[in-house]
Amino acid sequence: MHDILGGTAPSGRVVSGIKASTSPQINGLPFSKKKGGVFPISGGVPLAIAGLNGATTNNGNSLPFVSAGQLPQGATLQKLIFGAITVIDDELTLEHELGSSIIGKAQGFYLASTLDGSSQTMAFTALFGEHVEDTISFFGVHRTAAHESQVAVVGGNGKYENAQGHATIETLHLTDQHTTDGVETLLQISVYLTDH
Amino acid sequence: MHDILGGTAPSGRVVSGIKASTSPQINGLPFSKKKGGVFPISGGVPLAIAGLNGATTNNGNSLPFVSAGQLPQGATLQKLIFGAITVIDDELTLEHELGSSIIGKAQGFYLASTLDGSSQTMAFTALFGEHVEDTISFFGVHRTAAHESQVAVVGGNGKYENAQGHATIETLHLTDQHTTDGVETLLQISVYLTDH
Repeated sequence: MHDILGGTAPSGRVVSGIKASTSPQINGLPFSKKKGGVFPISGGVPLAIAGLNGATTNNGNSLPFVSAGQLPQGATLQKLIFGAITVIDDELTLEHELGSSIIGKAQGFYLASTLDGSSQTMAFTALFGEHVEDTISFFGVHRTAAHESQVAVVGGNGKYENAQGHATIETLHLTDQHTTDGVETLLQISVYLTDH
Repeated sequence: MHDILGGTAPSGRVVSGIKASTSPQINGLPFSKKKGGVFPISGGVPLAIAGLNGATTNNGNSLPFVSAGQLPQGATLQKLIFGAITVIDDELTLEHELGSSIIGKAQGFYLASTLDGSSQTMAFTALFGEHVEDTISFFGVHRTAAHESQVAVVGGNGKYENAQGHATIETLHLTDQHTTDGVETLLQISVYLTDH
């Protein structure tokens, strides 16, 4: 699952929970876009954001203004801001590379659900099939600080009707950040369905 | 299921994800109310919203300011804005007409979960019975562009305890838009529960 925030082709959008802040130009607007290009994070070097301060255009597709500078290596904003809600329309690919065979989409949302930013409550549906008629829905807490954590399968449609089971979610370290100009988080999702 | 946005008796409220915009008076507040009445959309003619520009009161019950003018025939705002979250308290009626016998309520939320606005992730509970003791909860992706799509039944209470199955959701074309001064979307929901 490729979750891309910011850049020219984001698959996730932070829609709530970003506290407006320091810059009077922002006026409570949750989004801002830098003019020019700082992203992607390349080579794992934390972003320099001095240049961001003048940016107040608002296209809703880029990273929230306030916290970009607090991004640790490989982190997403959602780790940091308790309560932030991110809506996702992420690609599911067979291999790890963004751009490899797309097998489906993951649509839903996650929200930062611990004060220390170490957990995300996730609720999303994976859609498969030519007519996206086969779906599996997930709900649970993804502990982003853990190597691996589990969410529950709460239902499904099509050939996954009444699906039960769980999925493990693992945040992978990205070796290639050049395929998007946003900030990509790559999640490996392994689904275990129960016979019943 | 009658989902009514805007007007004097809305059953849904957009709470997040509206892009702030053109009017400096708005200052990022997602809601605005027109003084007077433009709604309902009648005869499928796109709204003229020139008159909306002076309206900056914010009661949270009316349609978001920015995009009302972009509404195509029969569309809701949620088709248009990736990430918009709408909380609902919609009436469930036996027949299609708003005002026909109410059999329950649908409470929960949906969010625009594709970049092109063609899908909504829905999470809601249908409440039935004199004391709303019988409930069925649904979660999944409603593909608004499709004739019909499915969401999963993820649980229930009362006589629907441990409910499993799915529901099909079909967006019906409204022939009578005069029963509300909001923008109504009528969804026909057919529930298929599994014996187990």
